[in-house]
Amino acid sequence: MSQVYDRVALIGLGLIASSMFWAIKRSGLAGEVTGYARSQETRDIARQIGLCDRVCDSAADAAKGADLVVLCVPVGAMGVVAAEIAPVLKPGATISDVGSVKRDVIDAVAPYVPQGVHFVPAHPLAGTEHSGPKSGFAELFDNRWCLLVPTQGSDPDSVATLRKFWEAMGANVNEMDAEHHDLVLAVTSHAPHLIAYTMVGVADDLRRVTDSEVIEYSAAGFRDFTRIAASDPTMWRDVFLSNKEATLEILGRFTEELFALQRAIRTGDGDHLFDYFTRTRAIRRSIIDAGQDTEAPNFGRDPGHKE
Amino acid sequence: MSQVYDRVALIGLGLIASSMFWAIKRSGLAGEVTGYARSQETRDIARQIGLCDRVCDSAADAAKGADLVVLCVPVGAMGVVAAEIAPVLKPGATISDVGSVKRDVIDAVAPYVPQGVHFVPAHPLAGTEHSGPKSGFAELFDNRWCLLVPTQGSDPDSVATLRKFWEAMGANVNEMDAEHHDLVLAVTSHAPHLIAYTMVGVADDLRRVTDSEVIEYSAAGFRDFTRIAASDPTMWRDVFLSNKEATLEILGRFTEELFALQRAIRTGDGDHLFDYFTRTRAIRRSIIDAGQDTEAPNFGRDPGHKE
Repeated sequence: MSQVYDRVALIGLGLIASSMFWAIKRSGLAGEVTGYARSQETRDIARQIGLCDRVCDSAADAAKGADLVVLCVPVGAMGVVAAEIAPVLKPGATISDVGSVKRDVIDAVAPYVPQGVHFVPAHPLAGTEHSGPKSGFAELFDNRWCLLVPTQGSDPDSVATLRKFWEAMGANVNEMDAEHHDLVLAVTSHAPHLIAYTMVGVADDLRRVTDSEVIEYSAAGFRDFTRIAASDPTMWRDVFLSNKEATLEILGRFTEELFALQRAIRTGDGDHLFDYFTRTRAIRRSIIDAGQDTEAPNFGRDPGHKE
Repeated sequence: MSQVYDRVALIGLGLIASSMFWAIKRSGLAGEVTGYARSQETRDIARQIGLCDRVCDSAADAAKGADLVVLCVPVGAMGVVAAEIAPVLKPGATISDVGSVKRDVIDAVAPYVPQGVHFVPAHPLAGTEHSGPKSGFAELFDNRWCLLVPTQGSDPDSVATLRKFWEAMGANVNEMDAEHHDLVLAVTSHAPHLIAYTMVGVADDLRRVTDSEVIEYSAAGFRDFTRIAASDPTMWRDVFLSNKEATLEILGRFTEELFALQRAIRTGDGDHLFDYFTRTRAIRRSIIDAGQDTEAPNFGRDPGHKE
């Protein structure tokens, strides 16, 4: 693979940025990668493990002279960081981000983008329950989607180059407008995360069942919720606060449906339950066929061994 | 490992029974294993793949002369099957089951258990999203829990032998009373399953987001729900109908908590969300420490390869 950008700057060095760095290196996609993280500890770790060619002590230092600057900070911090780096952005450079919400990020960042700099918001649909500079790996984006959300007047060349960059990191790329992106993600990600967080909290709260019982007997379904509910709290707080409307809409639909199923249980309507469960099973099949999950039982967990 | 029972009969040949058979064979725990399934097709498959030493054409034939008879049918069918095999049960034999609900199963089965036959209900907390006679594997129970739920007057020797049997199949064994079992399982399994089914149904229903979008972009959290929601519809219909009270209680608590989080989103109460998510993250850690899940990212899914 050949170089796509001379210099790439990664602002924020968590799971996504660190995975981007290793994916860039895997295929030689940039001449130099600079990085910045707000916390001194994260910068120290990055320097120790060789994350980024050069770790800078300010966002502006990292962004200065870069051909691509990627904001990899929580959604709620995007505006502040954009304001900080705006004065040093190189004419003709592209600024992008990896936030899970797009409308709010665009509204927060766009006002700071200088004339002659191209803003192309993006969102790689990839992650694990781990976070921080050590959690990244080069394969994170392989065969996963990255959604580009060009704004009005996004430069087509700039969009095309960013697409090439994400494809070279292993992702499949699609374009979508911000409003639709936020609704799709509310369904496929934001509402499921809130629901998982809720269920895990309920289990923890219940006095008549001890925490140790919940933990020991979690293999019966609950543990899959805990994985989702282990994701980074700051990131998720910001996601819910900035994708408020779509998330609340989906949760409203969810509650409505849950009440209907609760009613079927209460009234003993077995046919309603059976039909519903048969329909949901077909969706699982489609996801496996689409290559977005493994068919191996239990997500391919090695059965029965303590890790 | 030495033989625990001369003859074991497995009634119903799905995921659990087929895994039991292979686990029994792995360690030579029975002299002969007979099996029966209601569907001719399942019996044919069982004969083809060597599942059970002898596949019988009636439950009574399979149970006749067995030292241990295990009912591995959906919870709603336990009573009917017990009535069918009761006349042929050998004096001194143990009858057990693997149902996910215990109070209802005990009420359905106990009246048919003849004098001199020992009834020891059980529930192995193990499974995958697959079902049917081909889905079983010997390691399913390794390091998983099996809960024994002795009834009033269960013979201690009979309980002890069944415990030895499950331990020899790889499980850790605990005893619990039926009511507590049903509440613990409502939290760790039944409510999470209903919630996952609901969310998958909502996604499928939503007109403004296409099914193909939901499926393609599922990696962002939703796909973990679909795995749970792919479990056997008959089994789960019966579970909800027979563990009605505990499931509805937990769902009530869940809805209450979900409303509180929805309210925090609506009012922009970031601290409430952050604190809640931080607490749930700690629970995930405990589950990994308890050996009930893997710490590998993404459940150890091979990242990014089509399977």
